[in-house]
Amino acid sequence: MNERKLNLTMLCDYYELTMGNGYFDHGMADKITYFDVFYRRNPDNGGFAIAAGLEQIVDYIQNLHFDEEDIEYLRGRKMFSESFLEYLRDFRFTGDIWAVPEGTPIFPREPILTVRAPAIQAQLIETYVLLEINHQSLIATKANRICRAAEGRIVLEFGSRRAQGIDGAVTGARAAYLGGCAGTACAVSDTMYGVPAGGTMAHSWVQMFDSEYEAFKAYCETYPTNATLLVDTYNSLKSGIPNAIRAFNEVLRPLGITKCGIRFDSGDMAYLTRKARVMLDEAGWPECRITVSNALDERLITELLLQGAKIDSFGVGERLITAKSDPVFGGVYKLCAVEDDDGNIIPKIKISENVGKITNPGFKKVYRFFDRENGMAAADYICMRHETVDGTKPLEICDPDARWKRKVMEDFTAVELQVPIFKNGELVYKLPTLDEIKRRCAYEVSTLWPEVKRFDFPHQYYVDLSEELMALKDDMLRQGQ
Amino acid sequence: MNERKLNLTMLCDYYELTMGNGYFDHGMADKITYFDVFYRRNPDNGGFAIAAGLEQIVDYIQNLHFDEEDIEYLRGRKMFSESFLEYLRDFRFTGDIWAVPEGTPIFPREPILTVRAPAIQAQLIETYVLLEINHQSLIATKANRICRAAEGRIVLEFGSRRAQGIDGAVTGARAAYLGGCAGTACAVSDTMYGVPAGGTMAHSWVQMFDSEYEAFKAYCETYPTNATLLVDTYNSLKSGIPNAIRAFNEVLRPLGITKCGIRFDSGDMAYLTRKARVMLDEAGWPECRITVSNALDERLITELLLQGAKIDSFGVGERLITAKSDPVFGGVYKLCAVEDDDGNIIPKIKISENVGKITNPGFKKVYRFFDRENGMAAADYICMRHETVDGTKPLEICDPDARWKRKVMEDFTAVELQVPIFKNGELVYKLPTLDEIKRRCAYEVSTLWPEVKRFDFPHQYYVDLSEELMALKDDMLRQGQ
Repeated sequence: MNERKLNLTMLCDYYELTMGNGYFDHGMADKITYFDVFYRRNPDNGGFAIAAGLEQIVDYIQNLHFDEEDIEYLRGRKMFSESFLEYLRDFRFTGDIWAVPEGTPIFPREPILTVRAPAIQAQLIETYVLLEINHQSLIATKANRICRAAEGRIVLEFGSRRAQGIDGAVTGARAAYLGGCAGTACAVSDTMYGVPAGGTMAHSWVQMFDSEYEAFKAYCETYPTNATLLVDTYNSLKSGIPNAIRAFNEVLRPLGITKCGIRFDSGDMAYLTRKARVMLDEAGWPECRITVSNALDERLITELLLQGAKIDSFGVGERLITAKSDPVFGGVYKLCAVEDDDGNIIPKIKISENVGKITNPGFKKVYRFFDRENGMAAADYICMRHETVDGTKPLEICDPDARWKRKVMEDFTAVELQVPIFKNGELVYKLPTLDEIKRRCAYEVSTLWPEVKRFDFPHQYYVDLSEELMALKDDMLRQGQ
Repeated sequence: MNERKLNLTMLCDYYELTMGNGYFDHGMADKITYFDVFYRRNPDNGGFAIAAGLEQIVDYIQNLHFDEEDIEYLRGRKMFSESFLEYLRDFRFTGDIWAVPEGTPIFPREPILTVRAPAIQAQLIETYVLLEINHQSLIATKANRICRAAEGRIVLEFGSRRAQGIDGAVTGARAAYLGGCAGTACAVSDTMYGVPAGGTMAHSWVQMFDSEYEAFKAYCETYPTNATLLVDTYNSLKSGIPNAIRAFNEVLRPLGITKCGIRFDSGDMAYLTRKARVMLDEAGWPECRITVSNALDERLITELLLQGAKIDSFGVGERLITAKSDPVFGGVYKLCAVEDDDGNIIPKIKISENVGKITNPGFKKVYRFFDRENGMAAADYICMRHETVDGTKPLEICDPDARWKRKVMEDFTAVELQVPIFKNGELVYKLPTLDEIKRRCAYEVSTLWPEVKRFDFPHQYYVDLSEELMALKDDMLRQGQ
């Protein structure tokens, strides 16, 4: 294989190692810590995000270990004790991880992944855990937005060449697929993850032949059942579409083939696709599908459809694969508790002058409350891990930022969002297939009210804290740490 | 090694494979083609970009081949002929590549990489070549902007956790370093590419101890010569800095150590660093360095320095590693010529309704003209590959978009920007070390006038076309293809 090998254990911020050595030096190697992953703001000021990246985190955790060469590198840095380097030799992950399954809609400030592990371990995995969740959740969320704008039409991920590095393309295509795309142009995302890959021709194909017509004819001959012709190399309306129709007539018609396609990669896509639809229909090619692929995102797709563009499928490139309009998913990894020598859980809080950056202390969990009457998601509820919620009894919930906003939940189903992934370092989660994740995503998004899914000023979905958690937080803030 | 393996040959857009099979089917497998890589617009509306990514492309080209499992996958798709699949079995790159060395300033529309190869080969490598150039040039360009804003102060790349995937972090740190950063937080970028990695502590270190002071003291004990303390976990001015000074006094002072540091990760960095500088100086720690690391980019750094912030080094995260303000480098890969059966080079052009998208036809090269008097770059000049420029004779150059703008170049040095990388599939280029690339970048950027380096409305550097190239282009546009 023409392969790229990368040492993921060392894909960590260097301070994870200096802190690790420091904990070791101060007898804190085995101190049990709790960390939460959460994010603070929905990309594109949307109403929610889609969790993704867990499968890659599981792979990473299972393979975590230091090689001789890693230890040699660290020894060469002359800041790590020999006993710490010795400790790293047998290092593996022995802790617990809970996480929200991939494809689940998530909301700011709720723990989407929680780690309970000895300090050094919990610290070391921070960088990679955040990297995967941040990247894949970013792209899955963007893909979901774009697919919702396309209103059931096909959306294909076309952005590999503009991705931010190899995984930007490859796991990016995976995330786009689980978020709603029908497939990708990236072949290796198919062989690795089973994301259906497809594609037909670039402008260079057309230019390689003596004429556009010959290029189209040649393509139809080689791929009669998969002939999507790129019609904008010279002049779409005067040359591209007429030549495509001629090639369809001469090659496909005699074979009895009625399915084919054209693609526009430039020009005004509302105007061109309306014209094209008429030309194709009049020429007897009503089943010819029209694909467009130029600078698309959820905004432009919405506008094109409002303007009556005749589009069957969208190829979306750089604006999806880099989430161009808002290219950072700001997930963070924060200490929320430690255990004392007797195993008591001592909550921790990070105070900040910026109120939005204050963390929720303690070992927690998250419920999603579904209205029993209509199955729709009504609110999320963060509480202490030992609390339980009984949906058959009324529960008053309250907005932690605006405590006068209270609501009594009645007749609801309370579903815990986090599920156990690792227990004592052992995988206890059956990883779903990518298609299962994709279906989960589609279903779970369907339980959100349209108001939450609006692009502009969506309704802020309720994420409330339990009374116990709020009291703990207030208490810790008063004490100043 | 906890490694990630990735099949790079299959990291291609699927249409490269369908076109390849089509060329094969139509007897065009060995047709020699010429493709140029160029880009159309500088990121952030800057005056130039920095070329990067070539080293990874060289690795890729040298390892290009299809495995049995790749061929099995393609056979399973039922669209590729058995003879094509047979052909892929022995596939390797046999063509020529020329490219601008990494670290070179580049400008829109000039060919930064040119491929001459049989059609199938040239087509297959498109996706990966663009991906690496686009990603690394994007980050190198952004890093160069940020480092110029820092005016000689240290800039460290801190963004792994917010990168778009693994390579977003790892090769991203490489690109940031060659563009001007002094180092990275990403440990594996050090072991893989020799980008100096460093880092000290996160907020969690501080929270793990019973008090901030104990956390600082413990850190100073373990790392007396590398003690950069994060002072904003509770309250920077009232608690963080006093505790840091106390730990420095108690642990470092007795050891005769005068070098240390503090870091702010939140709060107003102009106000806090000015206050901190006074507190540290008054406490007898004038060599204590101040690092800041919150939402930085070239704009905020410029403003902070204008406001008299006392900062020695900047840790730059998400806004660098994703080039957040403009996260796509739009490099394209366009057919510019083919050879006929007699080996004549037939130029090709891509016409577009959008004038900016029209390509420069033919097999070309680029010169950079340096003024002999001051060594500064005066203009770039794209001409046919067979043309030569003699800097001792006057040369009239003209702006292709505004042909009345003419300028006579006199007494200049003409340096060809592209150098041969592969000849008949063999590497003929000695890859420079990353530090050589970094020095090249710093030197070449110093040959650009400050007007070109301005962030807002920079002077548009001249990229002119030779008379012969302009005549060819005009001719082809008139003929309509």
